[in-house]
Amino acid sequence: LVTTSTDRPGPDAALAAIRPGIRDLPKSGILEIVDYARDRDDVMPLWFGEGDLPTPRFICDGATRAMSEGHTFYTWQRGIPPLRDALADYLSNLHAQPVEVDRITVTTSGMAAIMMTLTALLDPGAGIAVVSPVWPNIYAAADIAGAKITPVPASREPGGVWTLDVDTLFATCDADSSIRAIFINSPCNPTGWVCPAAEIERILEYSRRRGIWIIADEVYARLTFDLQTGEPAATAPSFLDIATSDDLLIVINTFSKNWCMTGWRIGWMVTPPSLGPTLEKLVQFSTSGTAPFLQYGALTALTEGEHFFQEMLARCAKARRAVIETLGPLAAVDLSVPAGAFYGFFRVEGELDSMSLAKRLIDETGVGLAPGVAFGPGGEGYLRLCFAGSPDYVAMALERLAKRL
Amino acid sequence: LVTTSTDRPGPDAALAAIRPGIRDLPKSGILEIVDYARDRDDVMPLWFGEGDLPTPRFICDGATRAMSEGHTFYTWQRGIPPLRDALADYLSNLHAQPVEVDRITVTTSGMAAIMMTLTALLDPGAGIAVVSPVWPNIYAAADIAGAKITPVPASREPGGVWTLDVDTLFATCDADSSIRAIFINSPCNPTGWVCPAAEIERILEYSRRRGIWIIADEVYARLTFDLQTGEPAATAPSFLDIATSDDLLIVINTFSKNWCMTGWRIGWMVTPPSLGPTLEKLVQFSTSGTAPFLQYGALTALTEGEHFFQEMLARCAKARRAVIETLGPLAAVDLSVPAGAFYGFFRVEGELDSMSLAKRLIDETGVGLAPGVAFGPGGEGYLRLCFAGSPDYVAMALERLAKRL
Repeated sequence: LVTTSTDRPGPDAALAAIRPGIRDLPKSGILEIVDYARDRDDVMPLWFGEGDLPTPRFICDGATRAMSEGHTFYTWQRGIPPLRDALADYLSNLHAQPVEVDRITVTTSGMAAIMMTLTALLDPGAGIAVVSPVWPNIYAAADIAGAKITPVPASREPGGVWTLDVDTLFATCDADSSIRAIFINSPCNPTGWVCPAAEIERILEYSRRRGIWIIADEVYARLTFDLQTGEPAATAPSFLDIATSDDLLIVINTFSKNWCMTGWRIGWMVTPPSLGPTLEKLVQFSTSGTAPFLQYGALTALTEGEHFFQEMLARCAKARRAVIETLGPLAAVDLSVPAGAFYGFFRVEGELDSMSLAKRLIDETGVGLAPGVAFGPGGEGYLRLCFAGSPDYVAMALERLAKRL
Repeated sequence: LVTTSTDRPGPDAALAAIRPGIRDLPKSGILEIVDYARDRDDVMPLWFGEGDLPTPRFICDGATRAMSEGHTFYTWQRGIPPLRDALADYLSNLHAQPVEVDRITVTTSGMAAIMMTLTALLDPGAGIAVVSPVWPNIYAAADIAGAKITPVPASREPGGVWTLDVDTLFATCDADSSIRAIFINSPCNPTGWVCPAAEIERILEYSRRRGIWIIADEVYARLTFDLQTGEPAATAPSFLDIATSDDLLIVINTFSKNWCMTGWRIGWMVTPPSLGPTLEKLVQFSTSGTAPFLQYGALTALTEGEHFFQEMLARCAKARRAVIETLGPLAAVDLSVPAGAFYGFFRVEGELDSMSLAKRLIDETGVGLAPGVAFGPGGEGYLRLCFAGSPDYVAMALERLAKRL
């Protein structure tokens, strides 16, 4: 080697040579609490957004069969035709009007769909209004895209449910002409809020009037519960119920939650058909497609997975009931009863620092919850408990919590 | 719905509302020729960079086994520990010095590794020097990152092999202080050029002196051939042979080529260990990890796949020989004998427009080749033929070509 040892870079040289905005991306507040608990082997983790069931066998078999049939080559960038067709059928049955196949793009996770969406829509310096609190990745993804984030906090009265004041949302967008998109997650992780149909109509009307994009994260659309009975309820109101195919609307979804496929990293997006060629290129240059045999597994989930989904949903409803029955009566606990998604989001009297409280609950109860501060403005002071796991397991964790709270 | 039909957007409204730079990303020149041939069912396609063997059964079984063991949940963002350990062992055996596990990140394709690399290194407006001709995706990925691309053309004399004048590379970087990174693909797709060890040393020394990043695409490192005998040769010289772990070096690789896993979308990158926490976040916000059961399949490829790889390599060597023996003697053909990768890259006397020639060859021979213009400066006038397929199939396509050329 021609260089001498004195030329060699020091251990921090590389870190100093990357983009500061990327180097300084905030660490997820959820991972901070996970790290805190890493040395304890008795923790009951309810901090992530996934259940405890592995992917059901028949879905795995769909992927295995496709592998053995040789579906292991480069594939269609927007997804294999049978999966796109099946998604169009599935969504058309789910919503109030048809969803055409040319609007559908399969993606390597819902997260990848969000990242591609931001890349396609937001120039560096453009703004995005984010209805918050909301799952943290959207903030970081917007940071990476160089976008300017304007949170629009939802709100709630003690003892009540979350609501979004859409006039505040519109006023926020009106006040900043750089805002090019609204990100809205309904049913909402972590609050359980479900945006009513009337407000979806008003937001779409606003989008049309102002030429602002709607990015609708509808991952939990089918995980809804009747607020009176606690039983599974109908699909949440969706922008797909009323939008035309050419509206400035991108709907994000995933196979992760409905069919216990979090590890598979497959999602999809519904967009105006005119964006198809652009998305084909964005897929090409981000992951160059999603494994075709995984897509056959996803196809099996869609075509044979309804019974499994209904069982999973009933299980969530049972665990949700345990959350409400255990935490609801506690004097110190203020729980917002969730209409959708699979999270209990609550605060504890006198506790304003959610990270500190989450750490103390690790120490004192061994139950792992996600601190509300991780979910952006409006989240501080709350804790998020995922009830997608076994109802018995969730009930056991709740008992531990109840003794302390 | 409160809006009237006159409010509804027209069919091009959405396309008009995305970022012009993204909307206008160039379409791959390879896909243009594929589209041209779409209606013909007798085309012998040698235009993509993949062979005709599906992923071998034992690798698929590794993934299936992991699925049935329940490895279907969210996973480590930088890759499952056993795969990262196995990659460290594999690379340490392959190169002249050890590669430590804290330098390794598993990614959802080599493409995703490149995109994350550009996101981490290049502010919008920063420059990247790209040794060309080279596979087209790097140009588009740099476009998406908002980077300014400066091609540094390799060159060749008629009848000769490709060479890179590293002094020209350095002068190019010296002349533009915005250049933050050099992208170098050796062995090179499409030219078959293998960067000699002495030049790798000089480039590393330059990187140290100037604080410029090296992004080394070493996907074809093990697909090399002895220029005299045509037999498989040793691993190509690699930056990993000589760099310290803290050099400004990112090496990109993939499981796609060595083990016929193009459809799996799994790759890896080797970086300074100080970048680990940043990469963990970039993975989180781009795809949130790679399916763990796929990673177990990749682990099987590494630990049990050497015999298969050697067979695949011998097959490539045989098909490469057919390329040289058939095209080499043709008076009108000027073929650069490839030292690495699995492509024949050649030009035809009097033919300056590679897209036009590729289309005529579709019409007249039914053989599908990639036009050189797709590979950036220096590529125009050439055609790329992939010889990763069955030697008999490649030989049949070559016979068709030889009759016409």
